[in-house]
Amino acid sequence: MYRPQIKVVDCTIRDGGLMNDSKFSLETVQDVYASLCASGVDIIEIGYRNSKTHFSPKDYGPWRFCDEDMVRKAVDGVDKGSTKLAVMQDAHKAVAEDIIPKEESVVDMIRVATYVKDVDKAIKLANNATDKGYEATINIMAISHALERELDEALQQIEQETKIVACYIVDSFGALYSEDVDYLVGKFQRYLKTKETGIHCHNQQQLGYANTIEAIIKNVNYLDGTLYGLGRAAGNCPLELLIGFLKNPKFDIHPVLDVIGRTILPLRKEMEWGYSIPYMISGVLNAHPSEAMKLMKLDDDNPAKWEFAKFYERMAEQAD
Amino acid sequence: MYRPQIKVVDCTIRDGGLMNDSKFSLETVQDVYASLCASGVDIIEIGYRNSKTHFSPKDYGPWRFCDEDMVRKAVDGVDKGSTKLAVMQDAHKAVAEDIIPKEESVVDMIRVATYVKDVDKAIKLANNATDKGYEATINIMAISHALERELDEALQQIEQETKIVACYIVDSFGALYSEDVDYLVGKFQRYLKTKETGIHCHNQQQLGYANTIEAIIKNVNYLDGTLYGLGRAAGNCPLELLIGFLKNPKFDIHPVLDVIGRTILPLRKEMEWGYSIPYMISGVLNAHPSEAMKLMKLDDDNPAKWEFAKFYERMAEQAD
Repeated sequence: MYRPQIKVVDCTIRDGGLMNDSKFSLETVQDVYASLCASGVDIIEIGYRNSKTHFSPKDYGPWRFCDEDMVRKAVDGVDKGSTKLAVMQDAHKAVAEDIIPKEESVVDMIRVATYVKDVDKAIKLANNATDKGYEATINIMAISHALERELDEALQQIEQETKIVACYIVDSFGALYSEDVDYLVGKFQRYLKTKETGIHCHNQQQLGYANTIEAIIKNVNYLDGTLYGLGRAAGNCPLELLIGFLKNPKFDIHPVLDVIGRTILPLRKEMEWGYSIPYMISGVLNAHPSEAMKLMKLDDDNPAKWEFAKFYERMAEQAD
Repeated sequence: MYRPQIKVVDCTIRDGGLMNDSKFSLETVQDVYASLCASGVDIIEIGYRNSKTHFSPKDYGPWRFCDEDMVRKAVDGVDKGSTKLAVMQDAHKAVAEDIIPKEESVVDMIRVATYVKDVDKAIKLANNATDKGYEATINIMAISHALERELDEALQQIEQETKIVACYIVDSFGALYSEDVDYLVGKFQRYLKTKETGIHCHNQQQLGYANTIEAIIKNVNYLDGTLYGLGRAAGNCPLELLIGFLKNPKFDIHPVLDVIGRTILPLRKEMEWGYSIPYMISGVLNAHPSEAMKLMKLDDDNPAKWEFAKFYERMAEQAD
């Protein structure tokens, strides 16, 4: 698949930060950034720029805040080529004042994550970013729980009231099937005549990569992935698979493969991500992965950790 | 998705046996069989019935041969309901004489695995099975390497010369994308007017389940899966995902989930299967996973194990 409009976006450090409170070492972030620049990835999201009134710096690592001086340490000395640098703001956990004017920042793009209900906050933050000189996106989380009428209205507002470059379908719960992706992409494209559509998938049902391909076929051009799928719960669409699939000669898979071996796989000693039965159950039942994450944290010798049918029943009752 | 013609086939013990020389304990096989009967799976493939002249019983466990008395031990005392029992014969490693008349056997179905080039051997074994009273299938392995003209001829022969119930697309290398599945399913259905088409996927690119769904949408009715994806290399389409997707009320996911927690996950201490970068590379390059399996077996402290870009180069050169 070769389409020059396609933008591959890596969010390893940002989404992976949901598994370790954004406590990656500087060396890890430097290696990820340099390797992905070398691979020709279009955009690298290096963390959140969320508010310190919502997250205590005592409890969270630097990539939850992405202070300008910290970001500079991570990217310093790297030939970034045409790769852009992004940070994410959560609509309900970030403030406009944390975004300095673009001329003073190495960051190129602000991605605003939001639930449908918080779309007004998201629009405000996105407009703050574009007014200050950045590219911006709005990423609609938990889309599998969005009420149709509210989503339609939000998309209409986003089209009319913002200058974002792309609006994302975010399958936070890994609950979408390919037919759902088709349906949502069609809806986004109908409302967003002047914006691109993006896709961000989670892998609860091992459909993260397949659903991203489905979106590509339907002309979605902003594609999120992470190295070895590192991300919340079952993780994300693996970036290495996406780069293996796309035929644009500007991408080089070699630095992607090597940083996985050198820097990402060793993280498995501290963090557990990827497909598992508790996550699969929450995906099938279109539920938030938080209960599954709790189950995964039980001691291995606790029998409840392995009684998956009971967990399924408990989750199914909550979903009713 | 509810279509009464759909047959869900579990091949955990058979395909998983490629990772441990078919050395599962009797207790493991008993638990898998009883749990899958309770879940309403249509067909359970319990191993190979291959020839002892091709495989030494000194080196391989009982599920490489599936002697009638051994199979009886595994299934004894279980209320099988409408679930059928299958064994597999490799076209180039099995003999007709190992199949006893159906009246003397608890086995219901013989599945014959073959490369396109061995289709005449496969037809002979399939006809031997149907003549002796069994249902039979022919499963065309390594389909991503099949030459178009030879495949066309093989399908024509299978349609004309056999009474099998289904002919399978087997993506041994985990190399197919959904468009390839579409193309092959179309071809199979054009040639096989009197047989069903089946799909058996491997997960090198995390597409095993997605490609199985794609096949379902294209009216494929024989669907292979394994518990937690247990199978060669990156494994198979996970049965639990398939059962989670299909809406036929005859399926019960609870016994599937519980046998995974009780019996399948503990096998991870002895066997390593599932997605990994070496398998991903062989899938992307449409190569046999044997080289990747060798790399995976290196000691963890051997740096070559993690130098994935070098491995990619080596594999890419072989593929040229």
